[in-house]
Amino acid sequence: MSTHLITGGAGFIGVNLARTLLESQNQVIAVDDLSRGTEATLAPLMTLPGFFFRRADCSDSAALGAVVEEFGGRVDDVWHLAANSDIPAGVADLRIDLHQTFLTTVGVLEVMKAFAIPRLHFASSSAIYGDFGSELIYEDIGPLQPISNYGAMKLASEAQIRAAVESFLPRANIFRFPNVIGVPATHGVIWDFVRKLKTTPDELEVLGNGTQQKAYLHVDDLVEAMLFIGRQEGRYLVFNIGPLDDGITVRSIAEAVRDEASPGASLRFGDGDRGWVGDVPRFRYSVERLSKAGWQPRLTSDAAMRRAVTEITRQEMER
Amino acid sequence: MSTHLITGGAGFIGVNLARTLLESQNQVIAVDDLSRGTEATLAPLMTLPGFFFRRADCSDSAALGAVVEEFGGRVDDVWHLAANSDIPAGVADLRIDLHQTFLTTVGVLEVMKAFAIPRLHFASSSAIYGDFGSELIYEDIGPLQPISNYGAMKLASEAQIRAAVESFLPRANIFRFPNVIGVPATHGVIWDFVRKLKTTPDELEVLGNGTQQKAYLHVDDLVEAMLFIGRQEGRYLVFNIGPLDDGITVRSIAEAVRDEASPGASLRFGDGDRGWVGDVPRFRYSVERLSKAGWQPRLTSDAAMRRAVTEITRQEMER
Repeated sequence: MSTHLITGGAGFIGVNLARTLLESQNQVIAVDDLSRGTEATLAPLMTLPGFFFRRADCSDSAALGAVVEEFGGRVDDVWHLAANSDIPAGVADLRIDLHQTFLTTVGVLEVMKAFAIPRLHFASSSAIYGDFGSELIYEDIGPLQPISNYGAMKLASEAQIRAAVESFLPRANIFRFPNVIGVPATHGVIWDFVRKLKTTPDELEVLGNGTQQKAYLHVDDLVEAMLFIGRQEGRYLVFNIGPLDDGITVRSIAEAVRDEASPGASLRFGDGDRGWVGDVPRFRYSVERLSKAGWQPRLTSDAAMRRAVTEITRQEMER
Repeated sequence: MSTHLITGGAGFIGVNLARTLLESQNQVIAVDDLSRGTEATLAPLMTLPGFFFRRADCSDSAALGAVVEEFGGRVDDVWHLAANSDIPAGVADLRIDLHQTFLTTVGVLEVMKAFAIPRLHFASSSAIYGDFGSELIYEDIGPLQPISNYGAMKLASEAQIRAAVESFLPRANIFRFPNVIGVPATHGVIWDFVRKLKTTPDELEVLGNGTQQKAYLHVDDLVEAMLFIGRQEGRYLVFNIGPLDDGITVRSIAEAVRDEASPGASLRFGDGDRGWVGDVPRFRYSVERLSKAGWQPRLTSDAAMRRAVTEITRQEMER
């Protein structure tokens, strides 16, 4: 039995990871400032043995350190998931990603150094790469030119972690996430579409012309991949995580949500192939390193999307 | 005539850049918090027409904004040089580079956005690359794994600037500096050796075994390269700046300083090929992109070092 601290522990990926870790008899300390995650999201976990929730802003290393202190300083693994998840908001005001996406990493590293916590697992992002057009994006590609403040601050976090590994941190894993879908959803394209159709069941407005193509991974697969990488040997590992396919279009998502949530609705598309500043329209993501290490996802982008559409529609329609 | 704002304007490179810009009849606003640069360093500039100095911490965007406001908001170019220059100190405490190397960049970007200042020139560093062993390091290489907090926060700055170019900044140039030498020196290996010999003229102690090899550029060449790149066309340009050679050893620097400053001194070397955590022992730096654009330095690493040894010895011995 190990003790795992999850930052952003009330978030979408955090609660899924926590549940899986608890199923293997681990102790889980979920830390979240509840700026986006909610107590409601945490409710199903609160009664499980070995689960603890503490409210703290992880960029405040004193506050985060106090949580670790409360548990005797004995934490084995930190899963650092806390970050801004509203990319367009972060483009408008760079202080949002500075604080929520990067300074949380600084706080985590300071606490890990102070308590000699040995293992960090970091949720980075495909957004660190920027726009490579149709080029296949493998982990060691360059140049890295993130086009959103979110991507910039994820890259900044990776860089700070890499330097920490050189000086005091025994082990770090960097997971570069694609778009991750599933429940409990709090943001993202499927969630947006479902909510729009709940308000206006006759018509669904789509940002951009619908040709944007992206790879999607279901959160169940994502959590498995994170745990798999956590079991590998190595001091500093970097892995793209994603499906084996090149992704699906926004149009196909809009159609699936319409068919599930409001079958009669018409679809209305906008102009251009970008939904917002910082949105990368097309994306080919190499997951060869992870495949070679021995892990592959169960669901394709299309299957993940269809499962998530059903899950998120149920979640939202029941509210 | 243009108005140029130089952050870190009281620093080693800042005063050299300011002098050159003033010689071309530009107006120069030097901003510095004087945490390392001094009023004494600025003294030769203070009487020159078109030169203004204002003391401010550039990570404080309100303070920096007030300086720009004082000049009617009319700034054409920002040369962002402010950063921590004590890399080992930054490894010991990550808040140093966070504040001085990265949050200064955040402050600069916020002020440029607020006042619609069109052009940013940023002093990045070869430290963003990390340790590539004997591999030739060109600008688009990957993966980027900085091994010092200084390198990490320079990479973070580049990422934040790249995202700014996507959303509001019309033009940015990224200069990746090698080791830069010349006067007024405030840090660096030559300065260290001269100061040590001033205290103990009989013996010079060298960190590491002396085989560390690095490329050095004289500040006169560096300033010319920065101005040359500033005149190129392009929205976001990234250039390695450096000599054409692969560099010189620490041993040859120690010998040159000894010969100049204290000819009878014996040299005492340490163990290993790294001087400190975050020090990259060997380094091959491609400057092909800059050569192809039409610029080459006048001095080799060896010639730059010999000139700087004479200059720094004179500076320190006259104190």
